[in-house]
Amino acid sequence: MIVSALLTSVGINLALCILFFTLYSVLRKQPGNIEVYAPRLVAEGKARRRGGEFNIEDLLPSPGWVQRAWHPSEDDLLASCGLDAVVFMRIFIFSLRVFTVAGIVGVFVLVPVNYLGDQLSGIDFADIPNKSLDLFSISNVKDGSNRLWVHFSAAYLISAVVCYLLYAEFKYISLKRLAYYSASSPQPHQFTILVRGIPAHDGSSVGDAVENFFTEYHPSTYLSHVVVRRTRKLRDLMTDAENLYRRLAHLKSRPHTSEHSRRSGFLGIFRQNGDLVRQYSKKLEDLETNLRIEQSDASLRRVEVPAAFVCFRSRYGAATALHIQQSVNPTQWVTEQAPEPRDIYWPFFSASFMQRWVSKLVVFVASFILTIIFLLPVAIVQALTNLDQLETTFPPLVGILEITVVSQVITGYLPSLILHLFLSFVPPIMKLFSTMQGFIALSEIEKSACNKMLWFTIWNIFFANVLAGTISSRLEIFYDPKTIPSKLAVLVPAQASFFIAYVVTSWASLSSELTFLLTLVGNFIQRHCLKSHDSEFHAPSITYHSEIPRILLFGLLGLTYFILAPLILPFILVFLCFGYIIYRNQLLNVYMPKYETGGKFWPIVHNSTIFSLILMQAIAFGIFSLKKLPVASSLILPLPVLTLLFNDYCRKRFLPVFHAYPAETLIKKDREDQNDPSLNEFLDGVVNTYRDPALMPRNHSQDRHERNSPLLSHAYS
Amino acid sequence: MIVSALLTSVGINLALCILFFTLYSVLRKQPGNIEVYAPRLVAEGKARRRGGEFNIEDLLPSPGWVQRAWHPSEDDLLASCGLDAVVFMRIFIFSLRVFTVAGIVGVFVLVPVNYLGDQLSGIDFADIPNKSLDLFSISNVKDGSNRLWVHFSAAYLISAVVCYLLYAEFKYISLKRLAYYSASSPQPHQFTILVRGIPAHDGSSVGDAVENFFTEYHPSTYLSHVVVRRTRKLRDLMTDAENLYRRLAHLKSRPHTSEHSRRSGFLGIFRQNGDLVRQYSKKLEDLETNLRIEQSDASLRRVEVPAAFVCFRSRYGAATALHIQQSVNPTQWVTEQAPEPRDIYWPFFSASFMQRWVSKLVVFVASFILTIIFLLPVAIVQALTNLDQLETTFPPLVGILEITVVSQVITGYLPSLILHLFLSFVPPIMKLFSTMQGFIALSEIEKSACNKMLWFTIWNIFFANVLAGTISSRLEIFYDPKTIPSKLAVLVPAQASFFIAYVVTSWASLSSELTFLLTLVGNFIQRHCLKSHDSEFHAPSITYHSEIPRILLFGLLGLTYFILAPLILPFILVFLCFGYIIYRNQLLNVYMPKYETGGKFWPIVHNSTIFSLILMQAIAFGIFSLKKLPVASSLILPLPVLTLLFNDYCRKRFLPVFHAYPAETLIKKDREDQNDPSLNEFLDGVVNTYRDPALMPRNHSQDRHERNSPLLSHAYS
Repeated sequence: MIVSALLTSVGINLALCILFFTLYSVLRKQPGNIEVYAPRLVAEGKARRRGGEFNIEDLLPSPGWVQRAWHPSEDDLLASCGLDAVVFMRIFIFSLRVFTVAGIVGVFVLVPVNYLGDQLSGIDFADIPNKSLDLFSISNVKDGSNRLWVHFSAAYLISAVVCYLLYAEFKYISLKRLAYYSASSPQPHQFTILVRGIPAHDGSSVGDAVENFFTEYHPSTYLSHVVVRRTRKLRDLMTDAENLYRRLAHLKSRPHTSEHSRRSGFLGIFRQNGDLVRQYSKKLEDLETNLRIEQSDASLRRVEVPAAFVCFRSRYGAATALHIQQSVNPTQWVTEQAPEPRDIYWPFFSASFMQRWVSKLVVFVASFILTIIFLLPVAIVQALTNLDQLETTFPPLVGILEITVVSQVITGYLPSLILHLFLSFVPPIMKLFSTMQGFIALSEIEKSACNKMLWFTIWNIFFANVLAGTISSRLEIFYDPKTIPSKLAVLVPAQASFFIAYVVTSWASLSSELTFLLTLVGNFIQRHCLKSHDSEFHAPSITYHSEIPRILLFGLLGLTYFILAPLILPFILVFLCFGYIIYRNQLLNVYMPKYETGGKFWPIVHNSTIFSLILMQAIAFGIFSLKKLPVASSLILPLPVLTLLFNDYCRKRFLPVFHAYPAETLIKKDREDQNDPSLNEFLDGVVNTYRDPALMPRNHSQDRHERNSPLLSHAYS
Repeated sequence: MIVSALLTSVGINLALCILFFTLYSVLRKQPGNIEVYAPRLVAEGKARRRGGEFNIEDLLPSPGWVQRAWHPSEDDLLASCGLDAVVFMRIFIFSLRVFTVAGIVGVFVLVPVNYLGDQLSGIDFADIPNKSLDLFSISNVKDGSNRLWVHFSAAYLISAVVCYLLYAEFKYISLKRLAYYSASSPQPHQFTILVRGIPAHDGSSVGDAVENFFTEYHPSTYLSHVVVRRTRKLRDLMTDAENLYRRLAHLKSRPHTSEHSRRSGFLGIFRQNGDLVRQYSKKLEDLETNLRIEQSDASLRRVEVPAAFVCFRSRYGAATALHIQQSVNPTQWVTEQAPEPRDIYWPFFSASFMQRWVSKLVVFVASFILTIIFLLPVAIVQALTNLDQLETTFPPLVGILEITVVSQVITGYLPSLILHLFLSFVPPIMKLFSTMQGFIALSEIEKSACNKMLWFTIWNIFFANVLAGTISSRLEIFYDPKTIPSKLAVLVPAQASFFIAYVVTSWASLSSELTFLLTLVGNFIQRHCLKSHDSEFHAPSITYHSEIPRILLFGLLGLTYFILAPLILPFILVFLCFGYIIYRNQLLNVYMPKYETGGKFWPIVHNSTIFSLILMQAIAFGIFSLKKLPVASSLILPLPVLTLLFNDYCRKRFLPVFHAYPAETLIKKDREDQNDPSLNEFLDGVVNTYRDPALMPRNHSQDRHERNSPLLSHAYS
């Protein structure tokens, strides 16, 4: 790619960004769109669904939202969005810090050094637009040149900076996590553990077994328990009832229109309407009777799973039962920390052990197949990037491709766009896979999906693009571990311009996140065509498993290309700045947290950054030996060793706090509560929060009106 | 190797075995040798050092000891030697069971099938002695023959049998372990944990910090503590004093002889003796004054390590503090289970963190170098086995080597003997390495050394012999993981006869363990030349780290060659039978347990057996594709998957019990003790058992006589 192709891409994408920003600042002021652009505020009752007063100012774009997104402090963010959101924003802050340092070093030191090297051509300052981007990369430095020591020092410098920042960040977040816990009011999941593998002896129920075991071995701290039940059938019945109820409500909302229609005498097909309503009402009542029977029956016949949520009188009591193996047989009375009640993924308990085991295997195979299939779009993308090959394969294209703009769009913009598009389909699939794996909490599912996505992204975006060729030839590189660095040192720089284009394209896809075009259209159709207002209003929650891997990929690109092609860094910095503002805005206005893990996503970021560092160092090792500077090449070797030792230290120092809270914290918190008279009341209620929602009595045919009214009054308040 | 060479080797080794057995049965009856052959009984006072009454029967070999070793039940063994000894014998029982089944299948099914195959030559029953052993191996089965399905079924059969037996054994031993704990009287280490990383705040001592922390967070269960101190200087002083004292004692025991000498007027050099005694006594007194100052000083100035043994009132209390992360900073207040007081390796605490960290690295490098160096003897051994190559390299040898017996001895016996010899030097080195690694208990050191030895043995005996050639060409096989099975399938069968010879040679080395020839000679010299009786008498302890890997190597050989060359199995069975009797005898009469891990060595055996199974299956996969039976080859693939799943299940089901005892057991045991009035007395004493022996007052110059007398009276009682 030459400089002008890059500039074309930057132009297109900047234009798109400005377009999206403008669109957003106009659209968000439209009263009808408040459900799309500030659903969180609506759900919390902080914003009203305003009426339709027209205002000319609403049509003028304004940058006020940027200021409003920038303004709140981290504590404000913590208070309104929880620790997970703060940790998510810390990823941007951390990356911005890293790439500010890297960018300054890269642009003001490495780029000039590279450009003044004369490996590729003589120094010629004229006609920069037609220069290949390679002139700004390390490829342009002469083999064996002493200038490479600049790159060598840069590698050491950036490793030190990243490690220092990683340490500071990990420390900051683990302290935040402890402080958040210490400041929290008593919450059910702090007092509760999930016990699985409860041995039910002949005849006696699971509940009795739990009661006996814990009164025997934890008499002073045991409080109560809820046995988990298999509720798939109930759930199915409830979904049917819900659907029927919706259809009925829809039908009932029509008579006004149908009266109009009947008046116009239009074929009288709406006469059926009354019959249908009656028929559906009958069906719904039947279903609900069934449901009630099932619910009472369920509690009688007890479709019990050998698992229970066990509540304790104190946090430390729960921790004691959690950390010590309870039974002589370690596969019985298996304990784990209970998730927050709202975070539990109930359908999980319906699957049998065997089902879960098989699904795990299936998920493994499916992820593998997905990774293979995804090589197809990657291959297309690579074909477009290497246009010369395409021309020889399809001679008729030559004419079209020779037009400069077309060729520049195709090499500079199209490939990355296709990749972005295909990539957007993957996160939901990965989440589905994780769901099948049998986690008990939504947060666990998203964390696992986040990990899956991260490695999928690194493999399928970074490696698959770097290692061009067939799958088998791609895998061959891993057969001979010794040669990996030198092979990467050849292949990675070759893709520099593609990844620069990729980063630039992501600006637009990031800004498009702001406008929620799809949701907007959906909302519009719903309001103006279906005119249905009564559907329950949910604010969406942020999909960490698709956002975090995306940002981490840019971290990986930035670090690996820092030495090779530092020209990528300014573009990544722009991406991060955009991202910081956009996600802050979205977190404050759009997304509603669905759970609170207390920052458990951070270790994923840490691991990914360490991986990026090691990869960068391996490539540096390869490039120095390729550039015939073997001394630098061997002097780089201590770097990965030191990085891994640093990582090991961090894991020992900070990771345990992310798995469980220490005794010190728990006991202090318990003592604080001892004097709180409301604690007993709270403890009485704890066990009820862990009841399966499917077992709660619910009645559509009767409480229809009561159910609707509070929601509507809330929404229009 | 041809059959007659094998028979030569069998002959030599059987003769050696009989010789050793006869020698042993005669020598052990000699009254002077009781310290060598029954040191344990002597130390326990069950046998007396008898006087020298001569008895003609003592010179006749008799098999009585075999019966006495056979007779005691497992419970007797448990009572007298502890659970570790029982677990050690279970390795033999387990292996005997496996190889009885394997042997029956191998000899009565596989060997005939192999021999009747005609890949290598036509069927010819005459002249068996000159047949190559390969005729009895799978090499003789025709490519693509349906007879290979017999081998295929055998692979499945033996995998199933081994897995079943592994499961049964793991279950049996974990139950034994729990039962042993339940039956044990209160022991200090059950109530104690070791706490490290104690943060000492400005001025306050480590002891105060421990006291404050545990009275704050574990007020109901905390009992007392001992702070660990750095005692290297004290230890050095004490060793000096000990040595001086010995020399002094030796000098003092001489006057009788020196009077004789003086009477004969022999140059009068013994006149110095008196001066020397006075001089040494003075020196010893000085040293001991120093020591006392140091000891009191030490307690004053407190050369404290930030570590302490913390004792609790109950086992469950100790477990609670052990399993829950105590401090907000996970690198502080790090808890681990305290070892038995007699098991503690005190010098460890003298090393600083940095020293330990560096030694870990050094140990890693040293183990690697040792492995490389050891390839030298392996190369010699391989050269001897492949005599033809030797002849071409050293033409003068041709004449000698053409003598049949010489050639048979050299190919059949010498190589294995050399390997056995070299291998016997490795365990002490490995133990030294593990000692440097910084384990706090002797048992941990030996367990780590056992693991090191196991992988060293598998790599240097099995793989190094299989993969002939230079080091680099050996490593090449691992670069291309796909081809490992097929390469092994070529290389492993080629070494069958060498390993058969190796097994046969081990018979003799095993029986030589019985006679303790070196100790016997040492003892003889001591008694008859030095005439020193006063040195303290110690019964040796069994070196698990050298014995267990040796037995496991035979397990590996047996399993991998089960399909390839089943002729090895009877020889392994003979080895196991010999081993069972010999080790039982030694455990009952010779070895004194130095610690009790409660069977923690078993998981090593389990892991090694699983590894052997997987290796066997990989080779089977390779051999079937080599023998052009691809269907069998692919049908073998589920086998390793199933084996690994089985292993995973076993780790989940049984391993946790080997790391810590469950709450159920601990609480039951605590409740039993509640009614025991002697428990308080015991608890008062617990803390004193964890005092560093170097800090105990000891006085050579004064208590010299008192110290000697009880020992002598005991020994000659």
